[in-house]
Amino acid sequence: MSSTPNASVDPMVLREVLDGRWAHVRRDAREHLHDPDFLPVYGESMDEARERVTRAAKKLADSGRVVLGFPKEYGGQDDSGGSVTSIEMVAFKDLSIMVKTGVQWGLFGGALQLLGTRRHHETYLRDVMSFELPGCFAMTETGHGSDVQQLRTTCTYDPQTQTFDLHTPHEAARKDYIGNAAKDGRMAVVFAQLITQGKNHGVHAWLVPIRDEDGTPCPGVTIGDDGPKAGLAGVDNGRLSFDHVTVPRDMLLDRYGQVAEDGTYTSSIENETRRFFTMLGTLVRGRVSVGGSAGSATKLALDIAVRYGDVRRQFAAPGEDREIVINDYLVHQRKLLPALATTYALHFAQGELVSTMHDVQTAVHVHGQEIDEQAQRELESRAAGLKVAQTAHATATIQMCREACGGAGYLQENRLPHLKADTDVFTTFEGDNTVLLQLVAKGLLTGYRDNFGSLEGWGKVGFVADMVRETVLERTAARALIARLVDAVPGVDDVPMLERGWQLKMLEFREKHSLEGAIRRLRKNSTMESHPTHPMTPFDMFNDVQDHVLRSAQTHIDRVVLEAFVEGVDRTTDPAARQLLDSVCDLYALSTIEADKAWFLEHGQLTPARAKTLTATVNQLLKELRPHLITLVDGFAIPDGWKAAAILVEEPERQEAMAARDAELRAQNAEGGREGGPGATATDLDVPPGQ
Amino acid sequence: MSSTPNASVDPMVLREVLDGRWAHVRRDAREHLHDPDFLPVYGESMDEARERVTRAAKKLADSGRVVLGFPKEYGGQDDSGGSVTSIEMVAFKDLSIMVKTGVQWGLFGGALQLLGTRRHHETYLRDVMSFELPGCFAMTETGHGSDVQQLRTTCTYDPQTQTFDLHTPHEAARKDYIGNAAKDGRMAVVFAQLITQGKNHGVHAWLVPIRDEDGTPCPGVTIGDDGPKAGLAGVDNGRLSFDHVTVPRDMLLDRYGQVAEDGTYTSSIENETRRFFTMLGTLVRGRVSVGGSAGSATKLALDIAVRYGDVRRQFAAPGEDREIVINDYLVHQRKLLPALATTYALHFAQGELVSTMHDVQTAVHVHGQEIDEQAQRELESRAAGLKVAQTAHATATIQMCREACGGAGYLQENRLPHLKADTDVFTTFEGDNTVLLQLVAKGLLTGYRDNFGSLEGWGKVGFVADMVRETVLERTAARALIARLVDAVPGVDDVPMLERGWQLKMLEFREKHSLEGAIRRLRKNSTMESHPTHPMTPFDMFNDVQDHVLRSAQTHIDRVVLEAFVEGVDRTTDPAARQLLDSVCDLYALSTIEADKAWFLEHGQLTPARAKTLTATVNQLLKELRPHLITLVDGFAIPDGWKAAAILVEEPERQEAMAARDAELRAQNAEGGREGGPGATATDLDVPPGQ
Repeated sequence: MSSTPNASVDPMVLREVLDGRWAHVRRDAREHLHDPDFLPVYGESMDEARERVTRAAKKLADSGRVVLGFPKEYGGQDDSGGSVTSIEMVAFKDLSIMVKTGVQWGLFGGALQLLGTRRHHETYLRDVMSFELPGCFAMTETGHGSDVQQLRTTCTYDPQTQTFDLHTPHEAARKDYIGNAAKDGRMAVVFAQLITQGKNHGVHAWLVPIRDEDGTPCPGVTIGDDGPKAGLAGVDNGRLSFDHVTVPRDMLLDRYGQVAEDGTYTSSIENETRRFFTMLGTLVRGRVSVGGSAGSATKLALDIAVRYGDVRRQFAAPGEDREIVINDYLVHQRKLLPALATTYALHFAQGELVSTMHDVQTAVHVHGQEIDEQAQRELESRAAGLKVAQTAHATATIQMCREACGGAGYLQENRLPHLKADTDVFTTFEGDNTVLLQLVAKGLLTGYRDNFGSLEGWGKVGFVADMVRETVLERTAARALIARLVDAVPGVDDVPMLERGWQLKMLEFREKHSLEGAIRRLRKNSTMESHPTHPMTPFDMFNDVQDHVLRSAQTHIDRVVLEAFVEGVDRTTDPAARQLLDSVCDLYALSTIEADKAWFLEHGQLTPARAKTLTATVNQLLKELRPHLITLVDGFAIPDGWKAAAILVEEPERQEAMAARDAELRAQNAEGGREGGPGATATDLDVPPGQ
Repeated sequence: MSSTPNASVDPMVLREVLDGRWAHVRRDAREHLHDPDFLPVYGESMDEARERVTRAAKKLADSGRVVLGFPKEYGGQDDSGGSVTSIEMVAFKDLSIMVKTGVQWGLFGGALQLLGTRRHHETYLRDVMSFELPGCFAMTETGHGSDVQQLRTTCTYDPQTQTFDLHTPHEAARKDYIGNAAKDGRMAVVFAQLITQGKNHGVHAWLVPIRDEDGTPCPGVTIGDDGPKAGLAGVDNGRLSFDHVTVPRDMLLDRYGQVAEDGTYTSSIENETRRFFTMLGTLVRGRVSVGGSAGSATKLALDIAVRYGDVRRQFAAPGEDREIVINDYLVHQRKLLPALATTYALHFAQGELVSTMHDVQTAVHVHGQEIDEQAQRELESRAAGLKVAQTAHATATIQMCREACGGAGYLQENRLPHLKADTDVFTTFEGDNTVLLQLVAKGLLTGYRDNFGSLEGWGKVGFVADMVRETVLERTAARALIARLVDAVPGVDDVPMLERGWQLKMLEFREKHSLEGAIRRLRKNSTMESHPTHPMTPFDMFNDVQDHVLRSAQTHIDRVVLEAFVEGVDRTTDPAARQLLDSVCDLYALSTIEADKAWFLEHGQLTPARAKTLTATVNQLLKELRPHLITLVDGFAIPDGWKAAAILVEEPERQEAMAARDAELRAQNAEGGREGGPGATATDLDVPPGQ
């Protein structure tokens, strides 16, 4: 679609395009987030890191920057999108602070706000916002992280005392990995099975004091420390166990389920599973924040690797005085540029997601509208899918950037080790990526039908029978635009690969075909249950196709992300910036297709000849985009003071000093007629011996 | 080739097969390496780690376990293969100790031994071996790691004083990332440009004191600390700068180049580049050790993830009392088993490499034979290629294992964070993987012709003209066996995929075709230099094809590794073990082909239908191998006391306690007729709402 981007592009224009709807939140952060406590400190101990991060959290609270998502009447701004954008900006700083922030105001505060009712808000919300009341979000147990519905902690109501009895029956039921637990937390939102009148009503949440003002654990509460982790040294993750802890009746966060004095249970949502997922659904913000924060860490890693690669030199070409800048190597470009293109694509997709989330949550929580279940579930699926894409991309890209910076990338002073170690758990927390892909897949397979109940696992693939025959590809925000582009492409053969419609069509075809194939195979397996010679258990029916099903989810995410990028390009008005983004979008689309070339070949969407053309086209795009590498990271607009990478300052200086010295030596050598000497380029050495 | 492995396999038999030629070294380590100082300590500070690792190094020296590679006359055993096997075993412990060991006895001691002459050995070798004289291998500079020939440190001879003047001309020339430098090192083998009588003779090495007995830096020596790194906290990496430091003439390690009192330079190897690479070539042991150590870390990570996955349960199948063991999920098997198969394959390839290295080095350094240049260069290429394969596999696999263990994998107490962070630099040190792939490729392109000179870089692709028309696929040790297997397969179509000959043929075809294609493209580009409208610079000629060239190297490595595995299976006499290894070898071969399916489709080696069969066959192998998962990690024979992973002890206990409690509750519920309750399986919940 693009012609070669050759005009010089103003990075400020790119920045504006990327800043999007919450540009004011981003600008504000860039201007004000400069406290040294917000930067990682290299070599500090876990205790020092925790102290600093606690200080930073308090400073963030004082700045009012973290409470945008809370109701106006308590001092917030009812700005859900602003709150996750704010976290995304904090994620450019020490990621422990981002996680601490996410725990206090996203998870703990969010649960209090969205699962609690007015009496909880009145009593606690201001202290939560000010960090006077640090708290925990105690959901995950050692034995159950992914399958939260199966938590083993119980909270049993006793009408005699009008209190609940909160209890951890065995070690696998202890709350684990809980942020704010090991050091700061004074209260926790604890998730447990609600039992009253002899019946289990499923998982609910209670607000439970865990430490008194002196920091002493409350009676019956045992607090453990998860100790040192791979990263996130400043987050005090810990373990909570409850030995028949008494919890007053009114500490149940009872927006979606209430227990009367006599123990009668009521809820506006009758089905237990649906109720559970409605409760969880309100907490989607956490997942969106993790995706966005992974994006920030990825941008910073790329910023460092791209700038370093632009001054770092290694190996000389003959006849050249200086060695070659490593960004000029094709294989280095192959590492950096597709990753950069994907980062742009995910940025646009994230922007779209945040916007949707904001609108859905504002309708319900600010304007008091009924939950639009279809919209809510689409949002959850998008959030899950994008969290997977962002965090998997972060893990791969930060690793690549570390390697692209060689030994320098291994030193803490150059930031990449922290970025890698801190983000490593992002693929796990707020939903394990494999489990989330499964969630996305189930949503697709059932065409967003009312099917919350199938989430419980793998067996009993009863929903197979209910599957819609033709899975509808619901399109992203850019519906009309995408349809127009796709329709403009008549077939799939011989269409130029830079034609956007062809790219879109390829990803659309793959998604549809993958899904339909998965449905076909599931259907076939479901007829095998009572097969005389090859019976299949319900588990095997699903498990047999699991890889295919997860692939379908992945293809869906790729398509959604491309559409968001296309829409982002379309919104860009500056011609030079638009042309550049157009090429970056081409690179994202084509490198995504290239990464799955085998599938397109297998399914007749690429001929062998066209598959080779595809690789050549990607390489051509790399050449065209090479001159724009710095502009593209400039577009992220990360303030220099936030980067905390020594090489960004020192390497350019070193290269200049070396070049000056080499030039001096060359002059001396030329004068004295001497051979070789340091700074001699490899031309002196390149005669193969024996010739 | 295999039938389904169904006999139960004795892990001890597998262990014996894997232990190979240096089984006695492995057994000795398993029996004796149990000092607590050898295990990682979670949460210790950098200073504490350094102290402990220095202690451990001294203990290792005292045990005599690290000096196998030194000459018998100085107390060693002239056992080069034993020395790297010993390091491979140390690598199951804290990897900082492995690196410290590698620095002291592999790099520093090895350089002294192999580049120095008798006077150096007599004076220093015993103290090096006993760790009385801790030393550094000061090659890499901040500005030059990959292109060592371009080091900027100079060492200039002055016949007046009969000393050298060692000098760091600017910051980019300081020695960097040097192990033992920041704390322990008393001397260093320093690499610098040797200048005498106004002429530069290229890089040579000197033995230079850097600290006196009190630890004070010697005059003119500035010592810096690289500070905290991503991992390897116990290794004191540092920086060395020399301000006109006087070095006595006899401190030149002068085996390959000598400077007479009057400054006359002599060498048995006239060509400077060849001399340089001959010197480097003697140091191949370091690269072999890194590959082997990466293998150890990978085995340990897989051991942890596989055992955890075998007890960890998540999500229930309907009608089942307990949740499903995560190793039963297809997608989990897709993660663990191909990685495990590749680990086996690399183990056999490593064994072959160590054996070859031992024989080549023993011939020269023990029996005093002339260097067989062909054998030496094949060894270097193999060592480079396998170092790439092992370390890239370690990076990917340890990451996967971390994720496969979820949140538990993120806690230091479960070892995986250390394995990940410590091995992360393995893809960089002892040769950046991309640069090493390039080295392998050049060896292939020139058919091992005498072409050292082309290493200097990318331009002037003069060697293109010299390239052999038909690149000969030299076969690995198993020549006859492989030839027989390949010849047994008539064509490529319709041959069963478990036919070993077909698998070998596929990888052979891909290597040959990739190489020939790369040569063709290079030739074509080399005619473009003086093209009137599309001239290409020498750099562009090569760079244009760089991705293709590196791919060729990768295909070569894959083929070599498969052949080594095939040979390993062939050596196995126990029928059950052989059948199992046969299936693991199938999985390695087929998952390697599957990972590059697009290439085989593009080049007519797979039809779309066969490509789908390939995926189905891999999935079938996963099912067959699932019951053997534990046996396969048992085969690694890692002593329990070395693992230092809390989950391996605690998770089975937790799962049993939970199961017992759940059973109790089920009994109570059945008795009392109550619904639900914790421990209720998801069948209670799986009715979709609204049905």
